[in-house]
Amino acid sequence: MTDHQRMMHLGLLMTANGSHFGAWRLPEADPAGAFTFAHYVDIVKTAERGLFDFVFMADTLALIPPKSPKTLGHVPLIAHLEPLTLLSALSAVTANIGLAGSATTTYNHPYQVARLFASLDHISGGRACWNLITSSNPAEAWNFGFENHPDHAHRYDRAREFAEVVQGLWDSWTDDAFVYDKTGGLYFDPARMHPIEHQGAHFAVKGPLNMARPPQGRPIVAQAGSSEAGRDLAAATAEIVFTAQQNFAGAQAFYSDLKRRTEVCGRHPQDIVILPGIAPIVGQTEAEARETFERLQDAFDPLIGLDALSAEFGIDLSAYSLDRPLPEDLPASPRATSRRDLMLAEARRETLTLRQMAARTASLGHWTLCGTPVQIADVLEQLFRDGAADGFIIMPSALPSGIEAFVRWVVPELQRRGLFRSAYESRTLRGNLGLPIPQRNDPRAE
Amino acid sequence: MTDHQRMMHLGLLMTANGSHFGAWRLPEADPAGAFTFAHYVDIVKTAERGLFDFVFMADTLALIPPKSPKTLGHVPLIAHLEPLTLLSALSAVTANIGLAGSATTTYNHPYQVARLFASLDHISGGRACWNLITSSNPAEAWNFGFENHPDHAHRYDRAREFAEVVQGLWDSWTDDAFVYDKTGGLYFDPARMHPIEHQGAHFAVKGPLNMARPPQGRPIVAQAGSSEAGRDLAAATAEIVFTAQQNFAGAQAFYSDLKRRTEVCGRHPQDIVILPGIAPIVGQTEAEARETFERLQDAFDPLIGLDALSAEFGIDLSAYSLDRPLPEDLPASPRATSRRDLMLAEARRETLTLRQMAARTASLGHWTLCGTPVQIADVLEQLFRDGAADGFIIMPSALPSGIEAFVRWVVPELQRRGLFRSAYESRTLRGNLGLPIPQRNDPRAE
Repeated sequence: MTDHQRMMHLGLLMTANGSHFGAWRLPEADPAGAFTFAHYVDIVKTAERGLFDFVFMADTLALIPPKSPKTLGHVPLIAHLEPLTLLSALSAVTANIGLAGSATTTYNHPYQVARLFASLDHISGGRACWNLITSSNPAEAWNFGFENHPDHAHRYDRAREFAEVVQGLWDSWTDDAFVYDKTGGLYFDPARMHPIEHQGAHFAVKGPLNMARPPQGRPIVAQAGSSEAGRDLAAATAEIVFTAQQNFAGAQAFYSDLKRRTEVCGRHPQDIVILPGIAPIVGQTEAEARETFERLQDAFDPLIGLDALSAEFGIDLSAYSLDRPLPEDLPASPRATSRRDLMLAEARRETLTLRQMAARTASLGHWTLCGTPVQIADVLEQLFRDGAADGFIIMPSALPSGIEAFVRWVVPELQRRGLFRSAYESRTLRGNLGLPIPQRNDPRAE
Repeated sequence: MTDHQRMMHLGLLMTANGSHFGAWRLPEADPAGAFTFAHYVDIVKTAERGLFDFVFMADTLALIPPKSPKTLGHVPLIAHLEPLTLLSALSAVTANIGLAGSATTTYNHPYQVARLFASLDHISGGRACWNLITSSNPAEAWNFGFENHPDHAHRYDRAREFAEVVQGLWDSWTDDAFVYDKTGGLYFDPARMHPIEHQGAHFAVKGPLNMARPPQGRPIVAQAGSSEAGRDLAAATAEIVFTAQQNFAGAQAFYSDLKRRTEVCGRHPQDIVILPGIAPIVGQTEAEARETFERLQDAFDPLIGLDALSAEFGIDLSAYSLDRPLPEDLPASPRATSRRDLMLAEARRETLTLRQMAARTASLGHWTLCGTPVQIADVLEQLFRDGAADGFIIMPSALPSGIEAFVRWVVPELQRRGLFRSAYESRTLRGNLGLPIPQRNDPRAE
């Protein structure tokens, strides 16, 4: 494949009013749309008009409380619809766009996750994607009978076995097992049914799945972990990887590391699609983009940003001065995340004040690109061409306006450069991503 | 309310090709429709044109194997799509019809069930219904790490607590908690949030649900258990009850018993809607209906019926002669179901041979009404007027033809008699069922 033919892949992070915490307060925002189906139809149809590979919904199994009780109620996004139901409904009003949702391996059971995504795959004609996550917030544990979430190693060990069971269940019928032979009275051929008989440390699952094999063979599996264990799991099992990066060097290092690990697992590096998150703010001029950004920042209370930082760091930062850098001697955090390390390294490097760090959390800590369509396409092109990305998760700061602007202005610019499709290649997500249909009992699932 | 004003409620049991095991083999049947969304769109749109209150999807968490391995592969229905995903997708192409699906309390967790149905309720604008079931088939246990399913008492004890947690989670926000105050920056009012802090024998769930209160206050809760424990649970918590009855006296006895139990629980008897299952086979003449029935029976292998009986009885009946009644001294069954008792009583009463008993299982053991629209409406009217039913679950023997015939011929006959609506009363299922919107902390949930 020549570089000219290699095409960028785009996913949309679908939130109610945008990934910027101030977006719901803009005059044009419709916050009640958070629980209204028509609101999401508008967003996903725009993304499909823009030929996006997929929309993606994050998920949590709890109302994640902010670190400081006084900001409770001021933070949007922490309450949301459930992904599988919303994505299924959206499948009925779309034809090509992929439908990706998170489901945790920590508190779900693999039989249920396997069938929910297999069912969505059938209903949508091959457009389902499971974002495999682990749960690390104690609020989720409290809804499932635990006092705290399991430790990192245990979560990843369970996640690995969970993925193995799910993939085994998707493979528990051959593609031609349902023969529907009216004359012979044979609905399915039992010889083509393969119960998994799984016995592991975390799960005992006999199988088979009570459903025909999904149209994609297996729904696409995405992951976002960037710890050592997260990268190894992604290299072994993921087909899409979401990653939070803030600069070119970091994105490039992550990209080459994960491609290398994927090869170590005996897989082709092009069979894992690496998508850094980008929060674009598009204007016809730089000034217009900057003005849009300032409107968002003005709608954002820095105390909420401080709270988000406190949550990410696992310690209460409200005791520190907003207008000075964080001290070197921060107390140790009970919670280790690779994103916190990234944020801290960035703050040290740029000597950010706590207020500046807090302001950056308004975009969920992801890379904000504020500029003209050409300026934004320049950065995306550089990341794509120079070994830092296979495409991007677009996280519009405000919705639906942000996806409308991106589709209207940035997508045509990417198409002009030969970096993005001008029509869907396929009716399935796997087809549009250019990923192979997995054979049953692919060693990856073992 | 005068008798004239009281209206019948109709639900459709939605299966791939009909509830008769021979239906998929008819020349006009589309068995591959089982895993095709458009197939179900056709069925549900017909039911909505016929002003049905809701469609209902049953569910299992396993491929339930037939009792005798040699019929494996010959029985349809045991593989199927997952209800929440399919109902969510169907919500996007319908406007009024309710969407009911089963979810077991035995292997699910209440936080997930609460949010799946709450999410469907938001997405559909108030049309969700949860059919609360318990799992009694060992094949389901084997997919969830157990060697056998828990005993009946334990299952019902867990189910009762499960329902309490789910209803508490649906009530964990006031209806006006999400204030979206842009000026003050308040997304929701924490004072209107009520975590449930549940600590019980089976579950510890802090809450709140991470979603606004559903449009119906609570999605409708349906149940189908007819054992003593099942009836008591239904009387305490259900708003719809499905029941399998084979004759007028049985239906009447069940109806009056359950209404009485509901009153004992301090509820109004009209707040529980009792719907016996009916498998109608409609013809323009009796002969035409009979011919349709014979075509179905001809497509049905009696050995499969024998197998279904064996599964229901929990013992292998293939050793007995097909052309003689079952002996009096049947071995004791490891599995107690009220349906088996009904079937056995009926067989004794009518001196049915095993072959005749097996043939009746072709309609899942439910009451088959074969006749003209007037004849079918006569039976439904009698059941409705004389204290045996508030309406019916219509279980068409063949789909989509069976629902098309019912909507075209039987619905107008019921409307002419003033027994059925001529337009939807409401956009919500609760409104169409005439059920009150539950207040938060209704004692029913305690």
